[in-house]
Amino acid sequence: MPTIRVVLVEPKNEGNVGAVARAMKNFGAEDLVLVNPCALGVEARQRAMRGIEILEAARTVGDLEAALNETDLIIGTSGVDTESEKRFARISMTPRDFASRVAKMDGRVAVLFGREDFGLLEEELRRCDLFFTIPASPDYAILNLSHAVTILLYELLPARAIKRGTREASGMEKEKLHEAFEALLAETNYPAHKRARTQVMFRRLIGRAVPSKWEFHALMGVIQRATKRIQRLERKD
Amino acid sequence: MPTIRVVLVEPKNEGNVGAVARAMKNFGAEDLVLVNPCALGVEARQRAMRGIEILEAARTVGDLEAALNETDLIIGTSGVDTESEKRFARISMTPRDFASRVAKMDGRVAVLFGREDFGLLEEELRRCDLFFTIPASPDYAILNLSHAVTILLYELLPARAIKRGTREASGMEKEKLHEAFEALLAETNYPAHKRARTQVMFRRLIGRAVPSKWEFHALMGVIQRATKRIQRLERKD
Repeated sequence: MPTIRVVLVEPKNEGNVGAVARAMKNFGAEDLVLVNPCALGVEARQRAMRGIEILEAARTVGDLEAALNETDLIIGTSGVDTESEKRFARISMTPRDFASRVAKMDGRVAVLFGREDFGLLEEELRRCDLFFTIPASPDYAILNLSHAVTILLYELLPARAIKRGTREASGMEKEKLHEAFEALLAETNYPAHKRARTQVMFRRLIGRAVPSKWEFHALMGVIQRATKRIQRLERKD
Repeated sequence: MPTIRVVLVEPKNEGNVGAVARAMKNFGAEDLVLVNPCALGVEARQRAMRGIEILEAARTVGDLEAALNETDLIIGTSGVDTESEKRFARISMTPRDFASRVAKMDGRVAVLFGREDFGLLEEELRRCDLFFTIPASPDYAILNLSHAVTILLYELLPARAIKRGTREASGMEKEKLHEAFEALLAETNYPAHKRARTQVMFRRLIGRAVPSKWEFHALMGVIQRATKRIQRLERKD
C-alpha cells in the first residue's frame, strides 16, 4: 500500500479544505499539500473537526511542481470522461480500479484535485500518470470537492491488502524512461507536431502498467539500444 | 434496484443538508425527508448547487414515523460498530454489502442518518431493519454527515462502471505490436539469449496497460519508425 498525498490545486472554499482534512483523518491519510489555496480561517478549522492536526500540518506551495516532490505516481481527477479516443489524456479509471491497481505498490502516490469550478488545467492534467473519474449521474456529475476526496480515500482504505513480490520502478526511474523515449523519437525524426502527444500516450501507458524495476531496466535497454544503434549508423554516413 | 429515500434525523447544520441534496443529485436519488431539521437558509441553498431542486422538494416531518411511510426496508447508520455480539441491534454491514443485497430488490428503502453529534437514538435504531457502518480509521471513524450520505449513495448507484469512451486494441492488433517489437529487437542486435524474456516482459506490460486502439497505432508508429530508420541507415553502409 502506498502513502497517499492529497494535493488540492487552488481550492477556493476554505470549508472544503477543512472537510478534506477531516475525511483524511477518517481514512488514515495524513499528507496534505495545498497549491495556492484561499485563505484558511475559522470555517476551515471548524469543518476539519478532529482532522485539525492534518489541516495544521498541511504544506502550502506556490506551484504544482513543488507539490509533487518525492512522488512515484501522480493521479488526477477528471470529471468529464472523454468521448473521443484521441483525447487520450483523459482516459480514466474508476476509484475502485485505481485502488486495486495501487494496492500492491509501495512509494508515494499524489492524488490531484482541481479547483471547485474549473478543475485541473490542461498543463496540470498533462503532468498526471493516470486519471480517475467517479461514476455519477449524467444529469449532474460534478461532486463537491470534499465528497470526491472522501470517495477516493474510502476506496483506498481497504485496498491495503496483498503484498506484492516485486518492487515497482520509482518516479525517478520512470522519468528516465520518458527521457529515453523522447530521445528515441528525436533520433527517428518523429514528426515534431506529434511528439508531445505521443510522449503523453507513452506516459499514460506506463502509468497504467505500473512496471517493476526489472521491467523498467529491460524497457530502458530496448529503447536506448535502438537510439544508440541509429546514432552509430548515422556517424558512419 | 429499489428507490432510495434519504432520511436526515434532526440535522443541526444547514450546510450539511444542502451538501446532502447535492450528493443525491450526483448519484440519482431524489426523495429527501427531514425530521425536525434546523432552519434552512442561504448556506443550505448554496451548498446544494444543482441539487437545489431536491432540497426544495424535501419533505419536512415532525417525527420519524411520518418519514417512514410507504417504505419496504429501513436501514440505519451505525457509526460505532459493536464489540459485543449481544448488542445485536448494532451488528452492521458495509455499504458495499448493503448495496449488493438491495441491488435486486424493488420497492422503497429508507436510509436513516442521525444527528451530527449523537447519531440515532436507541428508539430510532430499534425501528431499523438493518444497519451499515462505513469502514474508517479506528482513530476517528465519525464521518461528516454529507460524506456518509455520499459514500452510501455512491455504493448504491447502479451504473457504477464508467462507460469507457475508448475502444481497446484487439488481440490481433496487439499481436502486430509484439511482432513489431520483435523486429526492433532483431534490428538492434539485441542479445539473442535475452530476446525471449524481453518480449515476454513487453507482452505483460501491454497486457496490464490495456491500450486503446489509438494508443496501439501511436506505439506501432514509434516502434516501426525506429526499425525502419535502422534499416535505411544500414543499407547506406
